[in-house]
Amino acid sequence: MGGVMRELAEIEMNGHLIDSQMLAKVLDKIMDMGGEFEIKNFRIGLKKNDTSYIQITVAGEDGYHLDRILLELHALGARMVEMVDVKTEIAPRDMVVPRGFYSTTNHPTYVRYQGTWVEVEHNHMDCLVVLEDGRAICTPIGHIKKGDRVVIGTAGVKVVPPERPRQKTYFEFMSNDVSSERPSCELVRQLAEEIVRTKKAGGKIAVVCGPALVHTGAAPSLAWLIREGYIDVLLAGNAVAVHDIERQLFGTSLGMNCEGNAISGGHRNHLYAISEIMASGSIKNAIAEGKLKGGIIYEAIKKGIPCILAGSIRDDGPLPEVITNTVEAKYAMDKALQGVEMTIMLGTMLHSIAVGNLLPSFVKTICIDINPATVTKLMDRGSAQAIGLVTDIGIFLPQLVKEIDGQEAHHENLLK
Amino acid sequence: MGGVMRELAEIEMNGHLIDSQMLAKVLDKIMDMGGEFEIKNFRIGLKKNDTSYIQITVAGEDGYHLDRILLELHALGARMVEMVDVKTEIAPRDMVVPRGFYSTTNHPTYVRYQGTWVEVEHNHMDCLVVLEDGRAICTPIGHIKKGDRVVIGTAGVKVVPPERPRQKTYFEFMSNDVSSERPSCELVRQLAEEIVRTKKAGGKIAVVCGPALVHTGAAPSLAWLIREGYIDVLLAGNAVAVHDIERQLFGTSLGMNCEGNAISGGHRNHLYAISEIMASGSIKNAIAEGKLKGGIIYEAIKKGIPCILAGSIRDDGPLPEVITNTVEAKYAMDKALQGVEMTIMLGTMLHSIAVGNLLPSFVKTICIDINPATVTKLMDRGSAQAIGLVTDIGIFLPQLVKEIDGQEAHHENLLK
Amino acid sequence: MGGVMRELAEIEMNGHLIDSQMLAKVLDKIMDMGGEFEIKNFRIGLKKNDTSYIQITVAGEDGYHLDRILLELHALGARMVEMVDVKTEIAPRDMVVPRGFYSTTNHPTYVRYQGTWVEVEHNHMDCLVVLEDGRAICTPIGHIKKGDRVVIGTAGVKVVPPERPRQKTYFEFMSNDVSSERPSCELVRQLAEEIVRTKKAGGKIAVVCGPALVHTGAAPSLAWLIREGYIDVLLAGNAVAVHDIERQLFGTSLGMNCEGNAISGGHRNHLYAISEIMASGSIKNAIAEGKLKGGIIYEAIKKGIPCILAGSIRDDGPLPEVITNTVEAKYAMDKALQGVEMTIMLGTMLHSIAVGNLLPSFVKTICIDINPATVTKLMDRGSAQAIGLVTDIGIFLPQLVKEIDGQEAHHENLLK
Amino acid sequence: MGGVMRELAEIEMNGHLIDSQMLAKVLDKIMDMGGEFEIKNFRIGLKKNDTSYIQITVAGEDGYHLDRILLELHALGARMVEMVDVKTEIAPRDMVVPRGFYSTTNHPTYVRYQGTWVEVEHNHMDCLVVLEDGRAICTPIGHIKKGDRVVIGTAGVKVVPPERPRQKTYFEFMSNDVSSERPSCELVRQLAEEIVRTKKAGGKIAVVCGPALVHTGAAPSLAWLIREGYIDVLLAGNAVAVHDIERQLFGTSLGMNCEGNAISGGHRNHLYAISEIMASGSIKNAIAEGKLKGGIIYEAIKKGIPCILAGSIRDDGPLPEVITNTVEAKYAMDKALQGVEMTIMLGTMLHSIAVGNLLPSFVKTICIDINPATVTKLMDRGSAQAIGLVTDIGIFLPQLVKEIDGQEAHHENLLK
Repeated sequence: MGGVMRELAEIEMNGHLIDSQMLAKVLDKIMDMGGEFEIKNFRIGLKKNDTSYIQITVAGEDGYHLDRILLELHALGARMVEMVDVKTEIAPRDMVVPRGFYSTTNHPTYVRYQGTWVEVEHNHMDCLVVLEDGRAICTPIGHIKKGDRVVIGTAGVKVVPPERPRQKTYFEFMSNDVSSERPSCELVRQLAEEIVRTKKAGGKIAVVCGPALVHTGAAPSLAWLIREGYIDVLLAGNAVAVHDIERQLFGTSLGMNCEGNAISGGHRNHLYAISEIMASGSIKNAIAEGKLKGGIIYEAIKKGIPCILAGSIRDDGPLPEVITNTVEAKYAMDKALQGVEMTIMLGTMLHSIAVGNLLPSFVKTICIDINPATVTKLMDRGSAQAIGLVTDIGIFLPQLVKEIDGQEAHHENLLK
Repeated sequence: MGGVMRELAEIEMNGHLIDSQMLAKVLDKIMDMGGEFEIKNFRIGLKKNDTSYIQITVAGEDGYHLDRILLELHALGARMVEMVDVKTEIAPRDMVVPRGFYSTTNHPTYVRYQGTWVEVEHNHMDCLVVLEDGRAICTPIGHIKKGDRVVIGTAGVKVVPPERPRQKTYFEFMSNDVSSERPSCELVRQLAEEIVRTKKAGGKIAVVCGPALVHTGAAPSLAWLIREGYIDVLLAGNAVAVHDIERQLFGTSLGMNCEGNAISGGHRNHLYAISEIMASGSIKNAIAEGKLKGGIIYEAIKKGIPCILAGSIRDDGPLPEVITNTVEAKYAMDKALQGVEMTIMLGTMLHSIAVGNLLPSFVKTICIDINPATVTKLMDRGSAQAIGLVTDIGIFLPQLVKEIDGQEAHHENLLK
Repeated sequence: MGGVMRELAEIEMNGHLIDSQMLAKVLDKIMDMGGEFEIKNFRIGLKKNDTSYIQITVAGEDGYHLDRILLELHALGARMVEMVDVKTEIAPRDMVVPRGFYSTTNHPTYVRYQGTWVEVEHNHMDCLVVLEDGRAICTPIGHIKKGDRVVIGTAGVKVVPPERPRQKTYFEFMSNDVSSERPSCELVRQLAEEIVRTKKAGGKIAVVCGPALVHTGAAPSLAWLIREGYIDVLLAGNAVAVHDIERQLFGTSLGMNCEGNAISGGHRNHLYAISEIMASGSIKNAIAEGKLKGGIIYEAIKKGIPCILAGSIRDDGPLPEVITNTVEAKYAMDKALQGVEMTIMLGTMLHSIAVGNLLPSFVKTICIDINPATVTKLMDRGSAQAIGLVTDIGIFLPQLVKEIDGQEAHHENLLK
Repeated sequence: MGGVMRELAEIEMNGHLIDSQMLAKVLDKIMDMGGEFEIKNFRIGLKKNDTSYIQITVAGEDGYHLDRILLELHALGARMVEMVDVKTEIAPRDMVVPRGFYSTTNHPTYVRYQGTWVEVEHNHMDCLVVLEDGRAICTPIGHIKKGDRVVIGTAGVKVVPPERPRQKTYFEFMSNDVSSERPSCELVRQLAEEIVRTKKAGGKIAVVCGPALVHTGAAPSLAWLIREGYIDVLLAGNAVAVHDIERQLFGTSLGMNCEGNAISGGHRNHLYAISEIMASGSIKNAIAEGKLKGGIIYEAIKKGIPCILAGSIRDDGPLPEVITNTVEAKYAMDKALQGVEMTIMLGTMLHSIAVGNLLPSFVKTICIDINPATVTKLMDRGSAQAIGLVTDIGIFLPQLVKEIDGQEAHHENLLK
């Protein structure tokens, strides 16, 4: 720190720079990294809806130091004043990428191509950008093919971090901490409102869940939400499906009955459940045969919503519908999540983090788990937009269903 | 381990030795401590309701080794075959006790005095036994007075650990682990049944709670339980009372309104609440003046149940009813807990452990907390009978109230 | 409960029935399930090393009730007095199994075939037993082939739960709770001793780890353990390998440097790490080229120990060595774990549970995690033998290395 | 929201408004509360060390609405442009305070009295300000006496929130989250540096600790830190002292020996420890008699540093030095904390929160606990400056001692 500053660059930003803390983050980053700055031009938005504009000269000790600073500022929404077209290089082999490739954030991103700004399609974190026929496509490293034109560096790339909304809804007010000391019934009500509002506005909602959902007795509530049309995408694993079906066929999950007692022979019921589905050939067949008549997976298949069951190494079976190749499973999840506006994560650490990686930062992400570590890890892994509710899904979800049902009934009464 | 065994002693036990694991624990302890044993006489109970009887010769390397083993076996319910009267010594000064004093467990205990077995009164853990006029009184070390006759050693002392009940109720089936993966709604139903059953049988129920109860919005549910007569003793601290009253007077707790949002100036509302009570002189006066019209403390005072508010170093104020001397507070709690059959601990670590120390092992103890560490610590501190429910009291308690209300209504309908 | 008991059966057990609590569990189970019992014959082991023998008549309300009870008693080590050969049925299709198949526990198991007891090979929980050429093979449901002879029911099957060892080592003394209040430095010392003792006796040790190992700075310690020959099997996922290699190539993990600060551009370093390995074709090649010169995976490959990297849906890349098919990955893990005597689980919930499913109950299983929920879930899923150390692997592992190093040095000095 | 704005007020702020996020928080708060703003005047600091100045017109729907907004802005460091003297009212009775009293934040605060700014003495959160002889004294509500001149409202009161330091030390870089995934050994090193730096600069350091410190085996490390002069104030409870002394006299804590095994009769050792101290009359006497020869409390008393033992309702005994009146204990803690620059909280929730309430926001506050909930609650209660290290004090503290010892040795070598 504190060396002589020899290299300079001009950056600019606009938007709600103050209250979205974009400017604070940029100045912080420069100072943290030992750089200097001088503000050249600042037009502050005088009223609530006005945007601000700022031009800053950034100084680093040498070219390398300055470049490292600019790289960070870029991810925070700053851009070079002199805009040029994006630079690309050709991938020499499958999955082998040129050094210095641009790696994506989870914010909306644009690349300047032939003088115009092209939005990166389906942008999410930790991917590369491939140019193809004038389109810019967000591509995971594992999908890079020989010959792909991969974007290099940050020149000609623009990132637009989320701004503070002028009218906030409830969940945008909440800070993303992990306190368990919040009025739980009120949170139920607010989440119910948010779900109803999202659906009325035509938004898509995804649910990601783990087997704790079934063990804690919340499965019928999720089944209701699916049946009534509140859920558009269901992402889960083999264990959720197995225990959900076990509960339908044998009345147990993890060998425990509804009273939470281990019952006789119960520990093998999940194997019998797998065996029954195997005998039918698939869950779909078991439904067609009338063998499976309810539950989460039943409702999802009946409703015809995308239902991705991803494999993991702890699976028994697994069931025929489970995608055992993790790369394919991730790809299927990614596809199913396109266009989703809200994601509700229920009692699962692995799937929450996996889905968090696939979501753009503007998707409302609510992670409900009794273990605060799930929320903490989700945010450590970059899903800063996630809101954590530290509560017991076994009671929270039934209450949520009652609340949504009540709000809808109330709404219908108003219409009469 | 494995030295020559030179000293022998005969012990005996009776009861449901096998399924209550009393015998297993005794043999385990002997082996863990490097002793040897030989079973001299064993009459196993042949049917479910039959008790067993066993006589064992225990061997140690020397007298000291054997004594240490016997001391441990004693706390597990074993006794010397040849019974003698209890030995006592006189306390030389206040709070100064003779070396080798007998320290209590939380199990029912008897001392042999002039040839007959006398039950130790109000026995709980980590105390001494004082003989006085043919009575045996469990006495905390801080209450020992000069001249007290204090029981020394284990000779003539009999401990009766809880046996496995022949007909178990739900909560006795539950293991005392800290899993959060249990069917929550069912647990609500079972706890409701247990409370209704206990009250119908004339049992006393104590509630111990922390401020999280108010912050999570569960206070109206506890207020209902008190008003309807389900709670006989309320143990809490200054913070519960302050935030409960703050909620009544200003609609906030910790400065957050019912929506969980920090509201304007809210952070000082708890001080205003204290100030209002101070101006009235006491909570009781504030109720008499019509200033305080609801809430947990209001209902407890209206109902006339013992309501002990114990002070702690994090208190603001504190309120006039708070007992700021911790020794006096503990004594008041102890007195209030006498005769209680069930204790429900809600979202508090400090008070749960303090109350756990005061409870005999036969009191049903249910600790409800979203933080599994509270349950773990409670059991680490010796309250092995405690059952932990890892859930969110903010949703659990309102559901419990609905369930109890429903069960009672159902019951009344049956009577018509 | 309490109906008339019409059906009777005779069971017998032998071993250290009292102190291993086998008898207590059997009587408990009969009573919990509403059955009755009468003890016909009991020879108690009179001294420490003597075994006991018991014969019990079990009564149920009807044949179905009695069968359910016997099924449970069977898993606890009881067997029918009259022994018959095992029954089998032929699997009609791949992965389709006959109803009533026998599902395995994680205890050593024997089947009676043509009058002799055959040990089930590589037995672990939640599998089936297939008879083939006089061998009995533990087979996961997903590996059942059309025509397999699958064991049905419990007749002719004997389960041998672990008995209380007569001479316990330190870790066998520890109860499997999840307390964080234990003397940590002493635990380090004891685990070091256990590892050294196991290796000196020729035992195999497996390590299962998650990326927290790298993030907390413990990777060099594990690398040392591998290099020095203490670890025989390494089970991990893509994330561990990526961050381990990232740390080697760029000095960061999750984009944070050794000081735990997010550094410039660090969030893309893990992608660069993947890209570098892709360019070499594999981790092995990268080592051969001299690109990768240290770290956990480097040491494992150099040492030639089995190193299974299992894929998951949260993987970036994944790296070429990662097994992306979860069924194949599980199979590879299973194979690698054969003959292992001790398994150390370090900071991973998913892998710990997956590995727990594959381990017989006699494998020493130590789960080290700062999150008590990992241990709780592991035991909820059936790995009752697991011992949990709730501590910070980032400091624990470096201390463990120092301790082992010191013990070995001490040992060598003694030899001089 | 969105009503007509009828009332206006001018506020101003100066300082590092952007990067300390003071301006962002003020604009956010206005918008959250439904107000409007117009920036009248803004001079941005052009370079790193320049401060900014802003004047803002705030609009509310009516006088009451505007006042509520201004009250919040005030706590964020904004002040009215036209400055007047502070207003006061006389307390009518002991502990009874005039409505509308000013309640303190934990930031440095000044009141304008007879035209000059007077700093509030020993300011900390949730207190009142009393004017007396030209001094402004921060006073808890419980200490208000009849006749005290209590400050009313925010007019003439100025709050100075902490600014982002231009040169940060390590701990100021850390965000106050509760992640357990940080490089632990490095954190040890950095904390060691911070402690050494603070002491070399003549700063005072306080330690707050709970009994987990003793149970996890970290007591000798804290004893070393006290003996070597790194700790200036020790705050603890009865349990710490009892178990520390138990360890000295009997080699156990909570009846467990250094190996973490419950030893014979160990559960009564803490009572024997209390009894021994009682027999001596006090801990001091026991030291003088040579009965107590080491441990945390021994070192603190030998060193002559303030050592406050506060009582709680879970205390056995308590020991003679324990302050059993919680109001007096809090007062003693408050006095001992005056002038402290750094506070280290070790494994205690109750004491951490209590001490957090007493600390100004500029005191470096490091909370080390294996339970993330302790850190979360501490920050929920207003100690926003607290940094949480989620780690195991049983291994962390011994490492910290080695690190400090090494750094000092290194430093001395440099001087030779």
